[in-house]
Amino acid sequence: MRSDVRHGVRNGVRPSGGSRKSQEIFDATLDLLAEKGYEGLTVEGVAQRSGVNKTTIYRWWRSKGALLGAALTGARRLDLEPSDTGSLEGDLEALLRSIVTLLTAPPASDIAVATLGAVTHSPDLAVRVREFFADRLAREQPVFDRAMARGELTADVDPMHLVDLLAGVAWLCVVLRQQPIEKDFVSRAVSTVLRGAGAAG
Amino acid sequence: MRSDVRHGVRNGVRPSGGSRKSQEIFDATLDLLAEKGYEGLTVEGVAQRSGVNKTTIYRWWRSKGALLGAALTGARRLDLEPSDTGSLEGDLEALLRSIVTLLTAPPASDIAVATLGAVTHSPDLAVRVREFFADRLAREQPVFDRAMARGELTADVDPMHLVDLLAGVAWLCVVLRQQPIEKDFVSRAVSTVLRGAGAAG
Repeated sequence: MRSDVRHGVRNGVRPSGGSRKSQEIFDATLDLLAEKGYEGLTVEGVAQRSGVNKTTIYRWWRSKGALLGAALTGARRLDLEPSDTGSLEGDLEALLRSIVTLLTAPPASDIAVATLGAVTHSPDLAVRVREFFADRLAREQPVFDRAMARGELTADVDPMHLVDLLAGVAWLCVVLRQQPIEKDFVSRAVSTVLRGAGAAG
Repeated sequence: MRSDVRHGVRNGVRPSGGSRKSQEIFDATLDLLAEKGYEGLTVEGVAQRSGVNKTTIYRWWRSKGALLGAALTGARRLDLEPSDTGSLEGDLEALLRSIVTLLTAPPASDIAVATLGAVTHSPDLAVRVREFFADRLAREQPVFDRAMARGELTADVDPMHLVDLLAGVAWLCVVLRQQPIEKDFVSRAVSTVLRGAGAAG
C-alpha cells in the first residue's frame, strides 16, 4: 500500500493522504490558514512553504478549497483516532479527551480556531468543514457499532446527536469561554449525554 | 429609573446600558467588530459611527476592551430573555430556540461569529466573552430556581453544565457544521440533556 502511494506521487497521480509529501503540503496549508485566514491562504503560499511546485499541487487539487478540504480530513495533526476501551463510556471519554487536546494544544488548536473564525466568511470553506465533521463522525462509527453489539445502545439512538453534544460542549467551554477545564469535565459530560440517550452507562 | 439614567448621561456619568445613547454606542461597537474584527475596532471608529464624541466615550469606558465588554453584555441585540413557560423543559426549549435564532439571524449572528473568530487572538477580548457568558448564565438563573422550587431539578445539578451542553450543540451545529437545523433539534437536545441530568422531564 505504501509503495503504491509512492508510485502514485512519482507518476503524477494525486498522492494519498498517507504519503510524506502530501502531509507536508497539508501542514503548510493548515499553517497558512492559521496564520493568514482563508483569504490569505493561496496555493502559491502552500507551494513556497512546502517546497512543492505550484503546478504540481494544482494537478492534485484543482482549487485552494479542494486542497484545504483534503488537508482538513487528511492531515495527521487533526487525527482523532477512536479508542477501543471495551465500553461505550470509556470510548466516548477518550474521544472527548482527544477533542479537548485538539482544541487546546498548538498547533492543532490554532488551526481549529482559525478554521472556525473563517468558516462563516466562506461558503467554500463551510463545505470543507462539513466534510471534515462528516469524516470524523464516520471514523467514530465503530465505537457505536461495538456499543450496539454489546447492548449498551439501542438502534434508535443517533450517534451524531451524542457526538454533537460532546464536541459542542468542548468547543463552547474550551474555545469560546476559554475556561480552565475542570478535572471531571470529560467524565461528567459523557455521563450526562449517555444517561440522556438512555444508554446503559 | 430611566430618568436617573438620563441624568447620569447629562452629568457625564457612564450611562446605564438602558439609555438610548449607550445602545447606539453598543450597536456601533458590535457592528465594527463584525465588520473589521477586534484589531479593526477602535474607539475613534465607534465615535464616528455613533456620533458620540470620542473623549466622551473614553470618559465612560477607559479602553476599547471595556467598551466591548459593556456592549456584549448590554446590547439589546444580544439579549436572551429567559421565558417562564411553567416547566423546565419549556423554558430550556425557549432558551435553545433563542440561541439558535441569535446564531442564525443577522445582525446578531454576524456579531456572535465575529466575536468568536476574534476571541482567541485577544486575551482582552477573551475576558469580555467570559463576562458575556457569565452574565447570560446569571440571567437564566431564575429558570433553574423555579425548576428547583417545582421539584424538577435536584440541588446537585449544575445549571451551567446544562446550559453549556445546550449552547454548545447549537454553536457546533449552527455555526461550525452549518447544517440545516432539523425540526426536532431543539426538543431532542433539551430532552437528552434533561434526562441526562436526572431531571423530571
